[in-house]
Amino acid sequence: MPATTSDPRSTRLRSWWGWGYTDARTDDAECAAMGSLLPGTLAAPLPIPRVADLSIAPPAVTPPPSLAHIVTADPRVRAAHSMGKAYRDVIRALRGRPGRIPDLVAHPTGSREVADLLDWAGGRGVAVIPFGGGSSVVGGVEYRGDAHRAVLSLDLTAMDRVLEIDTAGRAARIQAGALGPVLEDQLRPHGLTLRHFPQSFEFSTLGGWLATRAGGHYATGRTHIDDFVQSLEVVTPAGVSTSWRLPASGAGPSPDRLFLGSEGALGVITEAWMRLQERPRHKASASVAFADFQRALDAVRAIAQSDLAPANCRLLDPGEALFSGAAHDGSTVLVLGFESATGPVDDRLAGALDLARAHGGHGGAATANREGPADAAVSAWRTAFLRMPYLRDGLARMGAVVETFETAATWDRIPTLIEAVRTEVAAAALKATGHRATVNCRLTHVYPDGAAPYFTVAVAGRPGEEVRIWDDIKAVANDVLHRHRATITHHHAVGRDHRAAYDRQRPEPFALALRAAKDALDPHRILNPGVLVD
Amino acid sequence: MPATTSDPRSTRLRSWWGWGYTDARTDDAECAAMGSLLPGTLAAPLPIPRVADLSIAPPAVTPPPSLAHIVTADPRVRAAHSMGKAYRDVIRALRGRPGRIPDLVAHPTGSREVADLLDWAGGRGVAVIPFGGGSSVVGGVEYRGDAHRAVLSLDLTAMDRVLEIDTAGRAARIQAGALGPVLEDQLRPHGLTLRHFPQSFEFSTLGGWLATRAGGHYATGRTHIDDFVQSLEVVTPAGVSTSWRLPASGAGPSPDRLFLGSEGALGVITEAWMRLQERPRHKASASVAFADFQRALDAVRAIAQSDLAPANCRLLDPGEALFSGAAHDGSTVLVLGFESATGPVDDRLAGALDLARAHGGHGGAATANREGPADAAVSAWRTAFLRMPYLRDGLARMGAVVETFETAATWDRIPTLIEAVRTEVAAAALKATGHRATVNCRLTHVYPDGAAPYFTVAVAGRPGEEVRIWDDIKAVANDVLHRHRATITHHHAVGRDHRAAYDRQRPEPFALALRAAKDALDPHRILNPGVLVD
Repeated sequence: MPATTSDPRSTRLRSWWGWGYTDARTDDAECAAMGSLLPGTLAAPLPIPRVADLSIAPPAVTPPPSLAHIVTADPRVRAAHSMGKAYRDVIRALRGRPGRIPDLVAHPTGSREVADLLDWAGGRGVAVIPFGGGSSVVGGVEYRGDAHRAVLSLDLTAMDRVLEIDTAGRAARIQAGALGPVLEDQLRPHGLTLRHFPQSFEFSTLGGWLATRAGGHYATGRTHIDDFVQSLEVVTPAGVSTSWRLPASGAGPSPDRLFLGSEGALGVITEAWMRLQERPRHKASASVAFADFQRALDAVRAIAQSDLAPANCRLLDPGEALFSGAAHDGSTVLVLGFESATGPVDDRLAGALDLARAHGGHGGAATANREGPADAAVSAWRTAFLRMPYLRDGLARMGAVVETFETAATWDRIPTLIEAVRTEVAAAALKATGHRATVNCRLTHVYPDGAAPYFTVAVAGRPGEEVRIWDDIKAVANDVLHRHRATITHHHAVGRDHRAAYDRQRPEPFALALRAAKDALDPHRILNPGVLVD
Repeated sequence: MPATTSDPRSTRLRSWWGWGYTDARTDDAECAAMGSLLPGTLAAPLPIPRVADLSIAPPAVTPPPSLAHIVTADPRVRAAHSMGKAYRDVIRALRGRPGRIPDLVAHPTGSREVADLLDWAGGRGVAVIPFGGGSSVVGGVEYRGDAHRAVLSLDLTAMDRVLEIDTAGRAARIQAGALGPVLEDQLRPHGLTLRHFPQSFEFSTLGGWLATRAGGHYATGRTHIDDFVQSLEVVTPAGVSTSWRLPASGAGPSPDRLFLGSEGALGVITEAWMRLQERPRHKASASVAFADFQRALDAVRAIAQSDLAPANCRLLDPGEALFSGAAHDGSTVLVLGFESATGPVDDRLAGALDLARAHGGHGGAATANREGPADAAVSAWRTAFLRMPYLRDGLARMGAVVETFETAATWDRIPTLIEAVRTEVAAAALKATGHRATVNCRLTHVYPDGAAPYFTVAVAGRPGEEVRIWDDIKAVANDVLHRHRATITHHHAVGRDHRAAYDRQRPEPFALALRAAKDALDPHRILNPGVLVD
């Protein structure tokens, strides 16, 4: 879904510890109101954490004079680069125990400076953590361990330019540090768009999307950023990898596909030629309600296996529909959206609604929303979608344990997988906290051969034990996913939090190849240590 | 395009030296007739080469008793596994100088036997050349060099079963040695199809397609076999890699994408879960003629950038249209085809025809061919398409140098690239032979951001110098591609013939990673030596 922002290169202050802008966070009264809905939470919100209250050691290294102008040791900047934005990260900050604060933060302005920083770090045993928007929810941007002399957070956001546009071929060369709104603002005058709109759109970068194989706007077809890559520039300690700009190639294994998903462990993605879209001129959306979740799954599968190709095809289970305001009667809600730059999409929406109704769906008056408002349930869901991470932080301040995780599996496994997650995660939460948990599910992306369920868990915690409680719950969730052969992540990445599960999922010969590639490209083992390989 | 075969597990005899079935090859009179169209060719065809005329040394190794029943030293089988089916291979056989004859040919019946063969070979310095249908046109299945004690051709075609079908999820687990018609015959009773129809369909295998990132049926969208892979089983000398069966995943770099395109150098692909299609019930096709090639390119780009998604969208330049019988008046011809399992496609065809006409196209009465015959130009082109390799062999017997090569590039480079190939390859052919060459071009696959041109070259050779002549011409072609940053291959693979060009194209850090992966997975360096890495 498109995030809206009127001022993408904003001077609005970003929270160092929580999601997004400080002026958008829930206030104390909102926190308390939310907490009242979750039995067992605190009576009053935890205070906003302050950098001044942290004990931050002086940097263990100093940058070389030639790079000093792009490196800072400012405590607030260092604190803001100590972690991502998972619940684990937010609650650790709220409890005054954030992750390891990096010694230095660098803001390179070009690939040459990235290479110089890697050279410097490699010679001194300094760990380098590539950092885009810092929105990782899997521990992808923090240092754990003590094998390095110091830690440098490598913030790419000063590299945020669209460098070239090929209008006829619909592609652009874009620096990796561009945040979503920053790159879209540069493409808009050309009538083009990347149309990659993760929930983190405002607070994540192209490079981060590429390094983590982010899931984006399209619920069907080309769901991941991977498919929009023409070529990559990646700075590795062993040299700069620049692939050719090609629409397709069959020359050996794809070089780009090795770096897509490498999460900063093999190199720093510094720019990419990306495939763009014409801005859609025709849109239509609708929502359909189902009394029965299983029949709704069948409807979604039928739509995914048609050639209708909805841009949005999200199935909200009753709890998710209730939470987002899309339904209040226990219905399962399917949110459908179609779009095209070339012609009306009403027929495609009608076709999808026919399939939905054939499986027991009701409602769903098609709303062509080229100019006008969208279907009310669609609008409600969109607004809630973008607001969710702020609400998550508000609940965290009330001592709640609240987090999401996502996966993907083939259709044959989906019903039992979802049921097992609901049952076993709720049981684990009850055991860990003594409170009943909310466990909701939506399908964010659907395929002819399977779907990507996305789960939200909320339960009151116990003061000071929130991290352990979440880790216990997540361990059960990971075990359920593993038993059902559902991937540890569809688009949130592996980071450090999913590492053990990833190791179990990954074929061992591929692990051998990846470790060998790591040795070859990062011989001093400085790049994002602990991610993907040891 | 679907190849038709009434008896896929045929007892018809395959040619050991040329394309396809021996009973389908051109006879001497046809050869002579074709040769008469190409000035400077021989007065009479070269004789069909005979295995009995080759001097084949006895095998330098003997298989272990436990594997002897799946290994043969039969001279005809060994000769048939000595090379692929490039022009280079055919003419070498015709001139009595085929590639290195492998010492042994194995026909394993399962993954365990593949692993056992690799173990045996690894301990003895025996090179192992994985071999599917043997249709490589890039020197992908022959041994060159002398660093190994012996050579084993590993023929996978005894592993040709569809092992499991998930009808609801539209996927099947298929052994890698299944030839196109063999696997389609097993899917047909379930109403499903892989719909991967390369020109080599009858004579190539799933494993070969996967190992070479083959281009298939769809001219737009998912053009390569890569996108239809759910999971792979790959037997490497370091162990068996089995990825999870998933509709999508963001867990690290894709394990499957490392093995897709690995051309037998990292492991032997033994089976795959593949995404299938419902058989299309609605089809429509048409052809459009253009007086101007550049305007035809613009039309194709407009269609590729629409959301019409034709299954077939092939642009034949005037020479190609003439040769295939699609046009005889110097027109450029666009062959369009649409298909769907769920609904009529006439509107989409009409939309594409509108775009074609807006760019100067004429003709193109839409023909819904659900039951009836296709547009005449479409039919002519299809028939010619499947017949072409046989004609190529006939021309080779007349001493002609006749071969194809293909590439892909972004739209901004396409017009000058095609013109440069035409001009420089024709000049190189003239210089090498003293004769004027035919250089035709078609676009086989098109993308929003570029296209895949496919070139055919034909010129009279000089007796006994055909290989050198072709190598000289191809060196010029490769140089043109490199200067225009067009990939050395869109879907024919790298093999040994493209290796030097591939090395220039590939980013060096990726080469480092690939060499490291090779060392880790194939420590004895027995797998398809010389392919991808040294």
